[in-house]
Amino acid sequence: MTVQHAGAVAPSQSLAVRAFDSSRLEAFCATAEFDRPTLVLDVDRVEAQYHALKAGLGHADIHYAVKANPHPAILGRLVRLGAHFDAASRGEIEMCLAQGAQPHQISYGNTIKRVVDIAWAHQAGITLFAADAEEELEKIAEHAPGAQVYIRVIVEVSMADWPLTRKFGCDRDTALRLLDTAKALGLDPVGFSFHVGSQTRKAEMWRPTLDAVGQLWADAKAAGHELTMLNIGGGFPAFYGEEIQAPTDYAAGVMAMVTERFGHVPRVMAEPGRGLVAEAGMIVAEVVLTSKKSDRDLHRWVYLSIGRFSGLAETEGEAIRYQFVTPHDGEATGPCIVAGPSCDSADVLYEKRPMQLPLALKAGDRVLIRNTGAYTSTYSSVCFNGFPPLEAVAI
Amino acid sequence: MTVQHAGAVAPSQSLAVRAFDSSRLEAFCATAEFDRPTLVLDVDRVEAQYHALKAGLGHADIHYAVKANPHPAILGRLVRLGAHFDAASRGEIEMCLAQGAQPHQISYGNTIKRVVDIAWAHQAGITLFAADAEEELEKIAEHAPGAQVYIRVIVEVSMADWPLTRKFGCDRDTALRLLDTAKALGLDPVGFSFHVGSQTRKAEMWRPTLDAVGQLWADAKAAGHELTMLNIGGGFPAFYGEEIQAPTDYAAGVMAMVTERFGHVPRVMAEPGRGLVAEAGMIVAEVVLTSKKSDRDLHRWVYLSIGRFSGLAETEGEAIRYQFVTPHDGEATGPCIVAGPSCDSADVLYEKRPMQLPLALKAGDRVLIRNTGAYTSTYSSVCFNGFPPLEAVAI
Repeated sequence: MTVQHAGAVAPSQSLAVRAFDSSRLEAFCATAEFDRPTLVLDVDRVEAQYHALKAGLGHADIHYAVKANPHPAILGRLVRLGAHFDAASRGEIEMCLAQGAQPHQISYGNTIKRVVDIAWAHQAGITLFAADAEEELEKIAEHAPGAQVYIRVIVEVSMADWPLTRKFGCDRDTALRLLDTAKALGLDPVGFSFHVGSQTRKAEMWRPTLDAVGQLWADAKAAGHELTMLNIGGGFPAFYGEEIQAPTDYAAGVMAMVTERFGHVPRVMAEPGRGLVAEAGMIVAEVVLTSKKSDRDLHRWVYLSIGRFSGLAETEGEAIRYQFVTPHDGEATGPCIVAGPSCDSADVLYEKRPMQLPLALKAGDRVLIRNTGAYTSTYSSVCFNGFPPLEAVAI
Repeated sequence: MTVQHAGAVAPSQSLAVRAFDSSRLEAFCATAEFDRPTLVLDVDRVEAQYHALKAGLGHADIHYAVKANPHPAILGRLVRLGAHFDAASRGEIEMCLAQGAQPHQISYGNTIKRVVDIAWAHQAGITLFAADAEEELEKIAEHAPGAQVYIRVIVEVSMADWPLTRKFGCDRDTALRLLDTAKALGLDPVGFSFHVGSQTRKAEMWRPTLDAVGQLWADAKAAGHELTMLNIGGGFPAFYGEEIQAPTDYAAGVMAMVTERFGHVPRVMAEPGRGLVAEAGMIVAEVVLTSKKSDRDLHRWVYLSIGRFSGLAETEGEAIRYQFVTPHDGEATGPCIVAGPSCDSADVLYEKRPMQLPLALKAGDRVLIRNTGAYTSTYSSVCFNGFPPLEAVAI
């Protein structure tokens, strides 16, 4: 099989390569039976990654982006490690509290909040909220009076594998104005947040974004704003086949650039999600069918028991190329279009760039999908085509 | 508001325009309180549409494509009307049986089936299976010996709004060979199925597809195959703003073309999904935030309480332009980018073609989304970003 394994990537001099040991996950999967697609999570791996990132981040708080994977075993472990949390909704705040997190450790990081949810969070003791618009500040001022807020800014430069859309944040002038608005509304505007873009593979790639935010920071200070908090967001990468920098080096590299531009900021927040949990997960699925549409086709179709609507949503646009482990690895391969099991014609994972998979692959063969701990289980649909949602178990 | 309402489309001479009365849904929504996004289903509307389609389809059996919406109230009503069902999975078969459907009324229409599910269906009394590949026929022959099978063919010509990918079906030569393979395996190959493409808005648009399948049908007969069944699949449209032909005319038009090409076929199956239930559903949601990213932006952003991951998956690629009803309809409008409530940057509904929405729209305003009875509730994710799945209620 030509799919590259983490351990098989040639290390370079300048970059430590992620070669995480997934033997515990593979050993568990090898002996267990699964009657449907299942995500297996190694919580010890999450802990190891937490320590590795924390070693580089220094005094910055890790606010785990709960949306990446809110499995209780992950949240519970992170609470015991003293992690903080970035929550997208009332539901996520409740999950963190249920695992013992304290309200002051949780930031309500979604810039789009229903007023009933703001009021609920305020009553639950949450004191830190994100905003990128006047209307949002008005809602927070009314339903969480006096709260700390940070303003999310748009950064148009990104070297990430997947730069974000313009959905979140506001431009420089609006951001500066919103600091004034927040004060006028009786809120406590503490700083800014931004997002460098998903899967920013090396610390060096943060440079242009940090330059832009550093300028904004200076402008805000010049305008008389006392800023005490910088939220550097996510973007911490996971290994999907392309070289990424090792977590401690990566985090230390980012923090060095932060210090260069911002000096000592009392409170720095970092929000790894994918970068903390993706490599701690392995999906166990199976081949349901292999076929050719025509005798003239050069490629085969391989249909799996899991697809875009049952956990692999991030294959949209073929963004992530997950790595597969099959019982025939090492044997002769050929190009395959890989698709999900549903009757939905859009449920195709890899077609524009077919995958090389073993020619011997057939219905019933087990397929392990590596580094699937983030953005899988909760993206799974409720009951699409009558298929149950992705199961998740922690070991 | 410039969003076009069904009743406001100018009728043409040649095409009856769908101007379904949604007053019962709107009346219910007007008086009810909803604490989260909710799909309201008018099951009487499903029944009326069933009768309208059946009036045109004549002796063809309606196999409702359960995946469009498996709500028990819809399945139960259709069972009482004598409908048949097209199931994509064991889960969907179980839902039909639970509502009183008989096994002979259910076809297992997914060409991608796990062997344990084939065996289960066989034991449950299902006798009709779809296939498009040799390996699938082998699985069926082993686990549902003697079953009736139909071969799904690829039709490369489509005039549909959304032609299907090549995920399902096989080409002409493969299809003919699979009939032989099925026989050799002790199965009963009864005929062919195809799919004209989603949202084929007028019967006339079926012509090139029916021509191609008609030729294949003739070739199979010439090769000595006794074919008794033709499954014409789905493609029956719903009203999303563009003119569609009225259901009875539409169905009668398709059947007239079928008879021209295929003569009298003992068993014709039609599989409307969207065309049967979409217009019977209305989603109740709300505006969570309106904003501008910059003072220089011409458009605003409108964030709803529902998005791509909580029920509106079919807005992917801006495929469907749902029609919104707001409290400010009739007032001045402006261009808006419409997005969902999650922290996912891809959760944007309409950006390439912004929507015209009332300038007065603000956080807390209720938004009704019309004709959302199909492919919404079961596409909803389990717990994405901590948001609960789309609620569904039948009236």
